[in-house]
Amino acid sequence: MKALEEKILAEGTILPGNVLKVGSFLNQQMDSDFIMEIGNEIARLYEGEKITRVLTVESSGIALAVAAGIALHVPSVFAKKHRSANMPKEVYTASVYSYTHKETYEIAVAKEYIKREDRVLIVDDFLANGNAVHGLMRILEEAGAELVGCAFAIEKGFQGAGDKLRSQGIRVDSLAIVDSMTDESVCFRVQ
Amino acid sequence: MKALEEKILAEGTILPGNVLKVGSFLNQQMDSDFIMEIGNEIARLYEGEKITRVLTVESSGIALAVAAGIALHVPSVFAKKHRSANMPKEVYTASVYSYTHKETYEIAVAKEYIKREDRVLIVDDFLANGNAVHGLMRILEEAGAELVGCAFAIEKGFQGAGDKLRSQGIRVDSLAIVDSMTDESVCFRVQ
Repeated sequence: MKALEEKILAEGTILPGNVLKVGSFLNQQMDSDFIMEIGNEIARLYEGEKITRVLTVESSGIALAVAAGIALHVPSVFAKKHRSANMPKEVYTASVYSYTHKETYEIAVAKEYIKREDRVLIVDDFLANGNAVHGLMRILEEAGAELVGCAFAIEKGFQGAGDKLRSQGIRVDSLAIVDSMTDESVCFRVQ
Repeated sequence: MKALEEKILAEGTILPGNVLKVGSFLNQQMDSDFIMEIGNEIARLYEGEKITRVLTVESSGIALAVAAGIALHVPSVFAKKHRSANMPKEVYTASVYSYTHKETYEIAVAKEYIKREDRVLIVDDFLANGNAVHGLMRILEEAGAELVGCAFAIEKGFQGAGDKLRSQGIRVDSLAIVDSMTDESVCFRVQ
């Protein structure tokens, strides 16, 4: 998505530790018209796929999941993060290790919000090491729901998680894939 | 908003401790078309008010803030919650006491996302005791930005925070005000 690549170049900043900060339009602050454009693009990519639910994880994925849900006219659901593994029985859970915070947390979705007959699209702002998406995939497996695909705004191609998922036959759509970045340049994969 | 009252009656559940659970359409799971309807209604209420930014707090307020931002065509921003008071200098912060979790947490917004010239609409899913909205108001004061009003999907009228804000001259719009609730009935204020 050309407009996203241009926005990353115009507003993104690169911080130490391969952090690409796009808080001005994609997560902490949401450029509403632009978020809706991304949501519409995701809906276009999955047209005809009969998605019944969008799944993400709090907090930074919520805005995009909401926009995708609006564009697809299906409910969006977010997994909550918890520090403790002590969860009620009526939720599906998975453990996720966060490289950013150097800790393992639990993600949980109430069982009533993911059904066996669901055709689910996972949506998130970033695909980096893939830990969060793997947690969401385990929740879908536990629920017996079908994963139709994973849509991300930005994939950090150099971390390899997207290509690994693709090699496993999982549909992954990233609207911008950053294959390398330095203080001075961001290189996007030609898609 | 009649449709919201009907949805609360149809899908809401009342849990011990005056908890009104509407996770099936308003927060953990978002009924996309309905969330967008609420966003459009908020935009209609604030038409002509020249809102420049929508502000909320993670996580349950994000969906509605995104929908309101899309409807108003202005950016939405969410304050992050932190346990520690140890914050970088480039953020505005406020302490908020959570009755639900019986603990005080810090909320923070990067200074770059709230400007002195902003006309801000605070949006949240619930107004209960008002602690979160007061935290957001302190952040706006610190930033020198103007608070135009506060829009909530559901106000727990019996907790009094909404009327207290109104008596202070603050514009508060709640699309449904629950004045009392028991296991068997929910009473809405006539607006």
